[in-house]
Amino acid sequence: MTDSSRRHRPYIAVAGPGEATALETELARQVGGLLAQRGAVVVCGGLGGVMEACAEGAGAAGGTVVGVLPGGDRTAANPYVTVALATGLGELRNGVLVNTCDALIAVGGSWGTLSEVALALHAGKPVAALRSWTPPAEAASSGQARLLVEVSTPAEAVDNVLSRR
Amino acid sequence: MTDSSRRHRPYIAVAGPGEATALETELARQVGGLLAQRGAVVVCGGLGGVMEACAEGAGAAGGTVVGVLPGGDRTAANPYVTVALATGLGELRNGVLVNTCDALIAVGGSWGTLSEVALALHAGKPVAALRSWTPPAEAASSGQARLLVEVSTPAEAVDNVLSRR
Amino acid sequence: MTDSSRRHRPYIAVAGPGEATALETELARQVGGLLAQRGAVVVCGGLGGVMEACAEGAGAAGGTVVGVLPGGDRTAANPYVTVALATGLGELRNGVLVNTCDALIAVGGSWGTLSEVALALHAGKPVAALRSWTPPAEAASSGQARLLVEVSTPAEAVDNVLSRR
Amino acid sequence: MTDSSRRHRPYIAVAGPGEATALETELARQVGGLLAQRGAVVVCGGLGGVMEACAEGAGAAGGTVVGVLPGGDRTAANPYVTVALATGLGELRNGVLVNTCDALIAVGGSWGTLSEVALALHAGKPVAALRSWTPPAEAASSGQARLLVEVSTPAEAVDNVLSRR
Repeated sequence: MTDSSRRHRPYIAVAGPGEATALETELARQVGGLLAQRGAVVVCGGLGGVMEACAEGAGAAGGTVVGVLPGGDRTAANPYVTVALATGLGELRNGVLVNTCDALIAVGGSWGTLSEVALALHAGKPVAALRSWTPPAEAASSGQARLLVEVSTPAEAVDNVLSRR
Repeated sequence: MTDSSRRHRPYIAVAGPGEATALETELARQVGGLLAQRGAVVVCGGLGGVMEACAEGAGAAGGTVVGVLPGGDRTAANPYVTVALATGLGELRNGVLVNTCDALIAVGGSWGTLSEVALALHAGKPVAALRSWTPPAEAASSGQARLLVEVSTPAEAVDNVLSRR
Repeated sequence: MTDSSRRHRPYIAVAGPGEATALETELARQVGGLLAQRGAVVVCGGLGGVMEACAEGAGAAGGTVVGVLPGGDRTAANPYVTVALATGLGELRNGVLVNTCDALIAVGGSWGTLSEVALALHAGKPVAALRSWTPPAEAASSGQARLLVEVSTPAEAVDNVLSRR
Repeated sequence: MTDSSRRHRPYIAVAGPGEATALETELARQVGGLLAQRGAVVVCGGLGGVMEACAEGAGAAGGTVVGVLPGGDRTAANPYVTVALATGLGELRNGVLVNTCDALIAVGGSWGTLSEVALALHAGKPVAALRSWTPPAEAASSGQARLLVEVSTPAEAVDNVLSRR
């Protein structure tokens, strides 16, 4: 890969609960795989559940997976992470994950996931929500709410964020 | 004040948009005043809108107001902040604000506010929402969703968080 | 205190080892007391050793002591801290401490202390070193090295940083 | 590369000034190249000077270079970084860099570099200093000071940290 093409790869964050349902796990795996096939760097929280499933999917497609870990121990990363960052920032690492991505795909709902969705919208970055949070009715008219789009399938999620970043 | 009583003061975060409506401003001012009267330390983001109004209210009641600023310049704090922290963390300072408080009152809605609500719930801390975010229906059955309570008045908000912390 | 005078109070960080010698403890206590008498807000790491001694000294003089704690538990602060911030940032909290101060006094040496001295100099802030780190010979000609001044007594340390901030 | 071998790759941070001399640049380039040849992930601050030179050297040897940037804009990374993290943490990103590495090589001296050396020693991680900071005499007897070793050549620096991590 040339420097030039590498520099222009999209970085897409995938956020979701560390304890995921079977469906969320399968959706996240597909999202990771499709992102890697499209040349995106997958950025995730580096631990289990949705984070591990998207990493596994991306890894199986030969992709790069960055795990932005909350703790200071790099070995806590799931085995599919290709580059692990042990931030030592605790839950504030969600903000690093949001800062470094071009767009975010949320798979499933949890309060940690919601904080990432909110931070991404606050930063003006597109978010695709796959069986995840939906915009509150009272926010629907704001410009930032329009950044949050509900999607139905992994393919739609990936198409959506790559077309909007 | 004795060391002992000071150590046991509650720290209550007040979160809300930097550009607030007249109603949000008035509600935040009352929240700040009531918190100070009850001996709580008010923690806010240190800037304008709801942050400034709650600080003004607390200050008028002789309270302590900690402003946890995003930038590295302490003088950006609104004039009612009694102790200003220039974190240099950008929006990640929301996480510091949540870490240091016992409970959070959200006044009005914005994506920054939502990220603070989500981080507080994720950390297991009580949240009172005053004309702010309401729990998504799909989360209503979770334990953390029960931490988020809608309230109607500043007095109810303050009673709520001080009784639950 | 009026808002105006409060806004113009200097914020002086005091850094030093959590396990301090009797001499370091006594020096730090005097530094804290003199800073409070001069109207400065004392900012420290909030734990033991030099951090506790400077807070005790400042508290005895009626001063404000901000403890910027590494962990997420506010009650870890020493009893002399008047405002405790539980950052959850680990050792990265040293950077918050440096960002928020106008100048730094280092009492005694430790690697944590040295990191605070280096961050302060890197940020262009004056540092007074009391039985602490001295500038490496190879750096003596740089502008930033001149920000680091060795002092011999608590009074000299306080005079030095308050005159240079 | 198998997951297993990837998980056991060392992560070595290379720290040094953003404005480097010709000698520092050449030393950093060799350090980066040797680290990549030995299978280490190179972690750096992502910007210019020593950070760019070590990344260039590692990249020429086909290595992975993680750039932990201070700002929130990923495109600020030098062109040799293979994975860029836009932390938005400002100078506090030095702490993330130290948390995520097994050991650190300092090339040349600056106050930013010194803060990284001090944070690494404080965290108990080995440091090799190549034309950089030397341990203060007063610290020479401490266990942490022994973590800081002066080296004379890039090869010695790389051997030193890889044997001690």
